[in-house]
Amino acid sequence: MEEINNVEVVPCTESDYLKPFRVHYNQVSSVSVLIFNTTSHCFILVKQFRPAVYMSEWERIKTQTPQSTEKAEKEAAEAPAQEGQATSEDDSSSQWPPASVGVTYELCAGLVDKPQLSLEEIARQEVLEECGYDVPVSKLKRITSYRSGVGVTGSKQTMFYAEVSDDNCVGAGGGEPCEGELIEVVKVPLHEAMTFAYNERIPKTMGVIFSFIWFHNNMSPKYKISTNV
Amino acid sequence: MEEINNVEVVPCTESDYLKPFRVHYNQVSSVSVLIFNTTSHCFILVKQFRPAVYMSEWERIKTQTPQSTEKAEKEAAEAPAQEGQATSEDDSSSQWPPASVGVTYELCAGLVDKPQLSLEEIARQEVLEECGYDVPVSKLKRITSYRSGVGVTGSKQTMFYAEVSDDNCVGAGGGEPCEGELIEVVKVPLHEAMTFAYNERIPKTMGVIFSFIWFHNNMSPKYKISTNV
Repeated sequence: MEEINNVEVVPCTESDYLKPFRVHYNQVSSVSVLIFNTTSHCFILVKQFRPAVYMSEWERIKTQTPQSTEKAEKEAAEAPAQEGQATSEDDSSSQWPPASVGVTYELCAGLVDKPQLSLEEIARQEVLEECGYDVPVSKLKRITSYRSGVGVTGSKQTMFYAEVSDDNCVGAGGGEPCEGELIEVVKVPLHEAMTFAYNERIPKTMGVIFSFIWFHNNMSPKYKISTNV
Repeated sequence: MEEINNVEVVPCTESDYLKPFRVHYNQVSSVSVLIFNTTSHCFILVKQFRPAVYMSEWERIKTQTPQSTEKAEKEAAEAPAQEGQATSEDDSSSQWPPASVGVTYELCAGLVDKPQLSLEEIARQEVLEECGYDVPVSKLKRITSYRSGVGVTGSKQTMFYAEVSDDNCVGAGGGEPCEGELIEVVKVPLHEAMTFAYNERIPKTMGVIFSFIWFHNNMSPKYKISTNV
């Protein structure tokens, strides 16, 4: 790696893999939060419709052979996460897959778009807006940070852990409709967490999988829970 | 989530967060591989210069106050991963940060761009091209799959585990220069893996962190190694 010394940013004129495009916003960094409710012993996740995931599935389905499409549709119909499945009367299902294929389970998360706030303060706001829990900044524990989307955004993500109780629940969450967020708050019981993490039929981000395992390794003894890996 | 039923793809005309842009390629899915060398008891990672990470750091640094920039530069100079650091004689360092800020540690990985090959076969090819190990497809163990870049690409990623030995090493790796890949193969000893995973000074993807912990939980007993979390 030592040979890379003089870096300049020049127009991207030719590449077999990335075609030039302009991104009109800066996604410098983001935060995500693993929320554990100590009253109900549940993890609090958000379930979101993601247009990019939907388009990715649409691309995949339309390039598949009829046999594999059938298999994928059968799998989708059986998957516990696939609610809102189009019925057989829905003519559009032959053109567009059901919205459910674009739904993913994710950690509560948000962009770092307020320079005057600390990462912890931004994480606190996201927990309140998306999940309805009012948790003091002091209860946010930093888990780690990493690079995400190294091929596209390269942004730095910082992950936190927040313990909440039913007493901290002050609203329904669901995000800010004016910001285009349509979020469903879902609970995953602690004793189901590891099965959930490794169930590939449940569409989720790596942040969910990693953070459940982090909890299993670092927090489970505190809650005297035996979870099967 | 049940209320999302009729999904149509229409032009994106207004959003506070995403401004419309056109992406001229499909990144439907990708594979990544945690490689463990059973001869040297090391993980095999790749270290790559990532323009997106570089630009993200450049954005971050230019919006920082002089004090925090100084701090970041001091940290970068001290970080073990920051090789190729610009020297003080390099006048361009005031404008552009050193290339090292765009370098990340990642799992061996690649796009699923050959429809006639299975995911395992594509993973096998990446291990050979990027890391120089010729490993039979039968040695590739599926760890799990997940969604990545849910806000941008939404692609499905499948992660594999491959055990190799020095006998499987048939080349230097380094990727395909004609595909624009400039990859350095690096080894992380097993006994340092958990420290590496949680060292935030070492820029890396979540795939590295997760897979090291997966190994710790699932494979370490086999190698009779005590690793500290």
